Amino acid sequence: MSSILNTTKGLEGVTAVNSSVCYIDGDQGVLAYRGIDIHELADYSTFEECCYLLWFGHLPTRAELQELKLNLARERKLDASIISLLKQAPKHALPMDVLRTIVSALSFCDPEEKVNDAAANTRKSIRLTSQIAYIVAAYDRIRKGKQLIEPDRTLSHAANFLYQLNGQIPSATAERALDIALILHADHELNASTFAARVVAATLSDMHSAVTAAIGALKGPLHGGANEAVFRILEAIDSSGADPVDYVKGMLAQKKKIPGFGHRVYHTEDPRATHLRTMSRDLGNSSGIAKWFEISRKIEEFVVAERKLNANVDFYSASTYHTLGIDIDLFTPVFAVSRISGWAAHVMEQLSDNRLIRPRAEYQGPIYPNKYVPMEQR
Amino acid sequence: MSSILNTTKGLEGVTAVNSSVCYIDGDQGVLAYRGIDIHELADYSTFEECCYLLWFGHLPTRAELQELKLNLARERKLDASIISLLKQAPKHALPMDVLRTIVSALSFCDPEEKVNDAAANTRKSIRLTSQIAYIVAAYDRIRKGKQLIEPDRTLSHAANFLYQLNGQIPSATAERALDIALILHADHELNASTFAARVVAATLSDMHSAVTAAIGALKGPLHGGANEAVFRILEAIDSSGADPVDYVKGMLAQKKKIPGFGHRVYHTEDPRATHLRTMSRDLGNSSGIAKWFEISRKIEEFVVAERKLNANVDFYSASTYHTLGIDIDLFTPVFAVSRISGWAAHVMEQLSDNRLIRPRAEYQGPIYPNKYVPMEQR
Repeated sequence: MSSILNTTKGLEGVTAVNSSVCYIDGDQGVLAYRGIDIHELADYSTFEECCYLLWFGHLPTRAELQELKLNLARERKLDASIISLLKQAPKHALPMDVLRTIVSALSFCDPEEKVNDAAANTRKSIRLTSQIAYIVAAYDRIRKGKQLIEPDRTLSHAANFLYQLNGQIPSATAERALDIALILHADHELNASTFAARVVAATLSDMHSAVTAAIGALKGPLHGGANEAVFRILEAIDSSGADPVDYVKGMLAQKKKIPGFGHRVYHTEDPRATHLRTMSRDLGNSSGIAKWFEISRKIEEFVVAERKLNANVDFYSASTYHTLGIDIDLFTPVFAVSRISGWAAHVMEQLSDNRLIRPRAEYQGPIYPNKYVPMEQR
Repeated sequence: MSSILNTTKGLEGVTAVNSSVCYIDGDQGVLAYRGIDIHELADYSTFEECCYLLWFGHLPTRAELQELKLNLARERKLDASIISLLKQAPKHALPMDVLRTIVSALSFCDPEEKVNDAAANTRKSIRLTSQIAYIVAAYDRIRKGKQLIEPDRTLSHAANFLYQLNGQIPSATAERALDIALILHADHELNASTFAARVVAATLSDMHSAVTAAIGALKGPLHGGANEAVFRILEAIDSSGADPVDYVKGMLAQKKKIPGFGHRVYHTEDPRATHLRTMSRDLGNSSGIAKWFEISRKIEEFVVAERKLNANVDFYSASTYHTLGIDIDLFTPVFAVSRISGWAAHVMEQLSDNRLIRPRAEYQGPIYPNKYVPMEQR
């Protein structure tokens, strides 16, 4: 085979699709959904409005937003068979394994499982966005032996999630903090999970297959799994009483990677980190538990100075989520609660002008023809 | 963002990874596993030996092959919780949705779910290969209300699958036919499902996440789903009594794609089709039901002459699988029964020299900065 190109490991810098969903300028630290800067969205928008923006390509009118909010609220429900499956997941199961399995099983009860057109996929996007939040909250309560909380359809997506998770209507501060976190995590162009979703969708398989694949990818510690790893370090520092800088120096001396720093695409500060840093600090102050922010800040100052690596989206989401009362092993599932919006946008975009995503490999194995040697002669 | 390259739609011809697993020469119609020609493997090898070849990189000694066969036979078992989940899948569920969900759920009972090293992944490859065959056979019996068949650990992988599916030890002809079909479908370089598996694995997620993603991709009609589509056409021709050529002409007049023809990579005959054509003919003759082969042959002659498109792996696997007593909607699951061997080989290869697979998109949306317009002004 003669390849057009040499292998670019990890497809770094290779453009795989044309897309109108997400604009990133890695040199300038710019992230924008449909061209609108993430800082404006974090300041003025809501998660529901961002879903509309990502799925339909423009900001909604009041009526359009109202309709989407109603539809999202209506889809806050899970079939009894799905609740039953959630209850059967073993207590030791990893939450991301459970989420991947249950989202796959949602296809069994989706009224449009065998329809793959744009209208059906818009409805599936709405359903999956509401269902994933429900599943993550319900699973956490089930594993803790707590009663399930019925959704409150008058609440925002963020507030209802915290309510179904914690059993209490969240404070306005907590609701807005999670809402901003959901906005910041909603999309990020061809990150590995979104790319996996598009590869699956491009075979003309279905939305559930694509989202199930994306959840499997998001689980990886080089992707969404990083925010869990960050908090495990904060916890280790706190419980041992170690100096944060000494602790990180020790990790570097052992050639360990510090999770939450550096990014394939950004060569300057990740604009999401800017917001999450502020949020982590404010939440720490308002909750009276500032230590997680303080440890984080010391680590960041050291790593930026020492390694010239910037904090990425995962670094301050760790302390933010913890302060919101979210368990460490739910950090990555909460990432999925947000990123489903971007996955769905990309699946729909892929299908609107589809071509099978099927690259080649550069062969480096035994030279062809490598004779089949009969067993007796081996 | 400045991209290194213009977008090559579907990554056609772009080399995404270096690989030693599979050699393809699309111009010469060559397919080889670890450099060994697929024709030699189909003539002399077995599926188990091909698993060894794909996973370990060389043909096994007698002792090595014996050990792998023993391990595969030992892993012919499913946890009671998995059988229970299979029984809960609704009767109307699509078999590929069930397979995707159950394989995802296998992670709950995998003794090494939290281990992602080469030794554990070799054992997971063995387990998943035996479990996927078991699941496909068991699911078919459950949905038909039949008793489950306990595996026979003295049989080959192919024979045991047919035994667990049909409840009868297969003839030597049927066993060898399926064995060859499994060999032919075992790997095909960076096909969409294998590529999806590698994208997921490259986040350092786990083997179950990668294989679950691959199953979702294989489901697509532009990928593994094509062999089902082929047989639906054969059936429509048979039941309507239409002339095969007239039927296909009618499809072309309606601008429909004829499934089972053409391939992204081959510009000449797909070497797997050569084998499957012979097998389809021989099985037709020996079973006394030659019509499926005959209809297929007439379609093929017309499409090759008229459209200069060659039959691909899916075209003759349709009539072959049907003659083996496999239901139409199990054709793609049976593809997975074989392709798990290649998926596993590629996941292990990806992890042996990993880099996150994270390409870029060429942005074509609203120009940045696209101002956030307050609701009142929309």
